[in-house]
Amino acid sequence: MNKLEIIPLGGIGEFGMNCMGLRVSGEMILIDAGMGFPEETPYGVDISIPNFDFLDEFKDEIAAIILTHGHEDHIGALPYLLKKFNVPVFASRFTAALAERRLEEHRMLGEVLLHRVKPNDVSEVGPFRIEFIHASHSLVDCFSLAIHTPLGTVVHTGDYKIDDTPVIGRPYDLEALRRIGDAGVLALLGDSTNATVEGRTPSEKAVVPAFEEIFDQAPGRLFISTFSSSIHRLQIIFNLAYEFGRKVCVLGRSMQRNVEIAEELGILQIPGGVVTDLGSARAMDDSEIVYLVTGSQGEMRAALWNLATGIYKGLEIYKGDTVVLSARIIPGNEKSISRLIGNLYKRGANIIEEKRRLIHVSGHASQEDIRIMTEACRPRFVVPIHGEYRMLFRHKEFVKNHIPGFDDDNIILIENGDVLEFDEVGVRVSGRHELNRTFIDEESLTEIEYDVVRERKKLAYGGAVSLVVTVQKGSSEILGDPLISFQGVAGVENDLNLNRDARDAVLQSIGSMSNVQLRDRKLFQENIRVALKRFLQQEVGSKPVIVTTIVEV
Amino acid sequence: MNKLEIIPLGGIGEFGMNCMGLRVSGEMILIDAGMGFPEETPYGVDISIPNFDFLDEFKDEIAAIILTHGHEDHIGALPYLLKKFNVPVFASRFTAALAERRLEEHRMLGEVLLHRVKPNDVSEVGPFRIEFIHASHSLVDCFSLAIHTPLGTVVHTGDYKIDDTPVIGRPYDLEALRRIGDAGVLALLGDSTNATVEGRTPSEKAVVPAFEEIFDQAPGRLFISTFSSSIHRLQIIFNLAYEFGRKVCVLGRSMQRNVEIAEELGILQIPGGVVTDLGSARAMDDSEIVYLVTGSQGEMRAALWNLATGIYKGLEIYKGDTVVLSARIIPGNEKSISRLIGNLYKRGANIIEEKRRLIHVSGHASQEDIRIMTEACRPRFVVPIHGEYRMLFRHKEFVKNHIPGFDDDNIILIENGDVLEFDEVGVRVSGRHELNRTFIDEESLTEIEYDVVRERKKLAYGGAVSLVVTVQKGSSEILGDPLISFQGVAGVENDLNLNRDARDAVLQSIGSMSNVQLRDRKLFQENIRVALKRFLQQEVGSKPVIVTTIVEV
Repeated sequence: MNKLEIIPLGGIGEFGMNCMGLRVSGEMILIDAGMGFPEETPYGVDISIPNFDFLDEFKDEIAAIILTHGHEDHIGALPYLLKKFNVPVFASRFTAALAERRLEEHRMLGEVLLHRVKPNDVSEVGPFRIEFIHASHSLVDCFSLAIHTPLGTVVHTGDYKIDDTPVIGRPYDLEALRRIGDAGVLALLGDSTNATVEGRTPSEKAVVPAFEEIFDQAPGRLFISTFSSSIHRLQIIFNLAYEFGRKVCVLGRSMQRNVEIAEELGILQIPGGVVTDLGSARAMDDSEIVYLVTGSQGEMRAALWNLATGIYKGLEIYKGDTVVLSARIIPGNEKSISRLIGNLYKRGANIIEEKRRLIHVSGHASQEDIRIMTEACRPRFVVPIHGEYRMLFRHKEFVKNHIPGFDDDNIILIENGDVLEFDEVGVRVSGRHELNRTFIDEESLTEIEYDVVRERKKLAYGGAVSLVVTVQKGSSEILGDPLISFQGVAGVENDLNLNRDARDAVLQSIGSMSNVQLRDRKLFQENIRVALKRFLQQEVGSKPVIVTTIVEV
Repeated sequence: MNKLEIIPLGGIGEFGMNCMGLRVSGEMILIDAGMGFPEETPYGVDISIPNFDFLDEFKDEIAAIILTHGHEDHIGALPYLLKKFNVPVFASRFTAALAERRLEEHRMLGEVLLHRVKPNDVSEVGPFRIEFIHASHSLVDCFSLAIHTPLGTVVHTGDYKIDDTPVIGRPYDLEALRRIGDAGVLALLGDSTNATVEGRTPSEKAVVPAFEEIFDQAPGRLFISTFSSSIHRLQIIFNLAYEFGRKVCVLGRSMQRNVEIAEELGILQIPGGVVTDLGSARAMDDSEIVYLVTGSQGEMRAALWNLATGIYKGLEIYKGDTVVLSARIIPGNEKSISRLIGNLYKRGANIIEEKRRLIHVSGHASQEDIRIMTEACRPRFVVPIHGEYRMLFRHKEFVKNHIPGFDDDNIILIENGDVLEFDEVGVRVSGRHELNRTFIDEESLTEIEYDVVRERKKLAYGGAVSLVVTVQKGSSEILGDPLISFQGVAGVENDLNLNRDARDAVLQSIGSMSNVQLRDRKLFQENIRVALKRFLQQEVGSKPVIVTTIVEV
C-alpha cells in the first residue's frame, strides 16, 4: 500500500538542527541539514548535528538533499551528512554559495553535486515533484517548498515571514501558495519559531526610520552590530551610509564573507565607493564612518567583544561613539550580552538596544502570518515544525482557536525521530527512532561521541584522581606505596595528612583481600577504586572520577 | 585625619553576593552577606560567596553585621562570614528568622548574637549610629539604612521599591528619608537592579485583578508558582483562595518553611482553615484546590519541575489544570523555563505566563522610584549599587539627565574591592582589593578553591589522561611499557592502534633523553607529558589534562 512517511531528525522541540526526511515508495529526500548550538560548550563542544546513524537503514533510498535557505541551523550539518550519503543537493544560488563555503572548510567542494534552482522551478526526484516557492525571511533567496507526492502535496514553509515590502527582492509569493492550496494540500509543515508572538511580524523595512534617526543624530562614529546573515539589514545600512555621507568598514570574518558573496551574486547592491578598509577608516573623521561588526550576542571571539574589552587590534571604542545592537537576544545569551553592554559603557559609548528602539525585526512568522500561511494553503493537516515544544504547542493552539476547520485531530504535534505516516486511510505516528545528538569540536571539525561528553561531565563535576598500585608480576606482592594524584578535587589541597590517609585506606583494602582476589587483577583494581572512592566521599565529600592503574613488574 | 571608607565586597557589577564594608576611625561594620548564583554549576559549584580573606586585615575592627532583608543574595553568605568573624548581627524579626534557619544548617545557632531591630530603631556601633528605615520590597520586614558617621550620613537603600499600597505592612517610609535628607546626606547608595526600567514599579497589589480573574475562570485545579520569599504574593493567594472557596496546599520545602515563619511572626495572615495537606487536597474536587509550588525558574529539583515531568510522588498534572508562573525570568534561566513550559503543555495544562498577564511585579525601584528616593535624600553623592555594570551605568545616566544638581562629579561608579574614601576635602577611590569569588558545594556546605574550579574547567574541556611509566629505582632503566588510560578524550575510542602509537611516542621521547635527564625525575616526567600531549594534539586534535606518574621499583 502506498504511504508517505515524514521523519524529523532535528528541529522539532528544539532550536536548531533542522532536518527532515520524506519517504515514499522506498525513496527518500532530506530537507535541510542544520547545526545546533548546544549547552555543552563547557565540555569542548561547539556545535551539534542531528544523529544521521539510523539513516543507514535507508542508505540506498536517499535521493537528494533540499535546502530551504542558508542559515547555519539549516545548512551547518551538510558536510557531515554528505560524508555519509553523497547525494545531489538542491538550493538557491545564495544558499548554494554559503553551502560551498562550508564544504570548502571540509575540503569536499569538488565532490558534491549542487543544483542551483530558482523560485517556481520544479525538480523531479523519484516520486517527489519539488516546487520551489519564493519566501521572505531575514535572509535572502529563501524557499518554501511544495512537495508533490502520490499521496498528496506537502508544503514545507522553511523559515519565513510574510513580508510584503522586503528590502531586497520580491514579497513572499502567496499567489503560488494559493494556487497550490486550490489544488489541495495534504499537510502544511509550518515554522513555529514565533508562534508565541501576536500580530504580524513587521517588514524588514520597518527598521528604516529608527536607523535614519540614528544616522542623523550620531555625533561620532557608528558601530552597528547585526547577524552577519541579515542581508536586508546590511542593505539598509549601506544605503543610509551613502545617503548620510559615511563610509562603511566591515569587521569580522563572517560579516565580510557574507557581504562578499551577496554582492558577487548581485543580491546586495552596495552604492559605489561606500566600502572602505580599516586603514582608511581610521584616517577619517569620526562622523564619516560606520563600522559594521559581528558579535551582537556577546560572543567572546567576535569583533564587538574585542572592541568592548579593548583587545581589537588597531581600533578602540571611545566617548562619542554610538554602538547599535541591531539583533534580538538569542535565549541563553542574556548574560554575555549584558556583560558586553557593561564593557561598552565603561569605554564611554552610547548604546542603542533593540528593546528601546525599533532597530530589529524578526525573520519568523508571528501568529497572523501563520494565519495567512494556513489560509493560503488550506491543508488537511497542520504539522508545527521548527521550535521548542512550547512554540509548537502555541502554534497548534493558535490554529485550533483562530482558524475554522482545525482541531486536535488535524493538527499534529510530533517529536524528533517520530515516523509520521500518511496513507489513503489517514495519518498516524507509526514508529519512532531514538536519536542522540552528535557533538562536533569546531576547531578540528571532528565528531565527539556522546559518551565522551558524558565522561567530561563527570570530570567537571568532581575532578579526577589517578591511583597507581604496583604489584609483583604473577604474584600478589605489593611493591612500594600506592601513588595518588588529584586534579580538580575539592578539599584535598594543602592537606598532607589526607594523601597519607588515602594511601592507608587503599593499603587497608589490599590487606583485607585474599590472594585469590589479589590475583584477579580486575577485581583487585575495582576493590581499591571503591576503597579510595569511599574514603574521599567520607573525608572530603568529593566524588571524583578515579582512574586506577595496576603496574605489574 | 578623619575619613570614611566604603568597600563593596560584592554586588557591584554583578547580580548577587551583596556585601559592603563601612569603615571609620578603625572600626568597621558590614552591610549584608549575600550569596551569588554562579555560572560554574557544571563544575560542582552551586553557590558563590564574596571572598572575605582581605577582611583579615581588619579582623579586630569589625564590630557588627547589619542585614537589610532576608533574600539569599543578602543573607546567604552569613554563616561563612560569621565563621571568620563572629560579631553581633542586627536584623528585623523576619530577616533574623530566615538567618537563623541558615545558621541552623551550619550548626551555629547558639553561637551567634542576633539583635532584632524594628523600623525607627537606632543602634550605636562604635562611631556608627544606624537608623533602620521601613522599606517596601517583594519581601517583608525590609530596611533601608541611614548610617550616621562623623563624616556625614550614608543612606543605604537595601533592595527597595516605593510601594504606596503594599499588601502587607506600611508603605515605604519616605517621611523618615525626607527628615534625614533635611539634616543632610553625604552619600546615597542606591539599588540599581531596575535602573533600566522606565516609570514606576507597580505596587505589590497590582497583580490582584489578574489573579481574581484566574481564580474566577480556572475550571479545575490551580498550580501557582512564585518565589517562596514573595510573601505579599502568598498573602494575595491565601486571601483569594478563601474568597473563592478553595483550599491551599503548599508544596516544596522552602515555600513551606517561609509560610511557616511568616505566619508564626504574624506577618502572613492565613484565613482560618484555608491550608490543607496533600492527602486531603487529593481527595477534593479539582475546583476546590490551589497548589502553591516552588520552581518558577525551571529548577530541576523543585516541585513544579517534578510535576511537569511526572516524577512528583502522589500528584500529577493533567488536562484541565491551570499553571500560573507568577515570577520574572531570572536571566540565564530562559532555556530551563522554556523546557518547563513545554513539559507542562505536554501534560495538557493551561499555562499563564508573566509576559501575557499582570501576575508579577518587580520588587526593585524603577527610574521614577529612583527619582523619588534621590529627591527625598538630596545626597551630596550618589553611588549606584546592586546590579551589573550596565544597570549601575543606567542608574547614573538617569540621575544625571533627569535630576538637577547631579553630574559626573557627584555620581560615582565603583567596583567590588574599591576603597571609596570620603573626607572633609571630598571623595576618591583610594585603593583597591583584588577579590576572587569563593565557591561553595551546597551538598557538603564546604568551600571549593578557585584553583580547583580552574582545574575542573580544563578537565571538562578536554578530558583526562593517566600516563604511568615504571623505572628501576636509582637508575634510568624503564621497566615494561608505559600505561595510558583515557577519560573523556575525543577521538581515542575504539582505536587500538592509537593507544599503541601513543605508547610508542612516549617510548621515543624516553629514548631521546640522556641518562642525566632520565635521572632528574621531574624533568623526565615533564618530558614524557609533553611528548604525549604533542602526540594527542597532532593525531586526534585533543588537549586533555595529562596526569603523569613515575613508579620507581
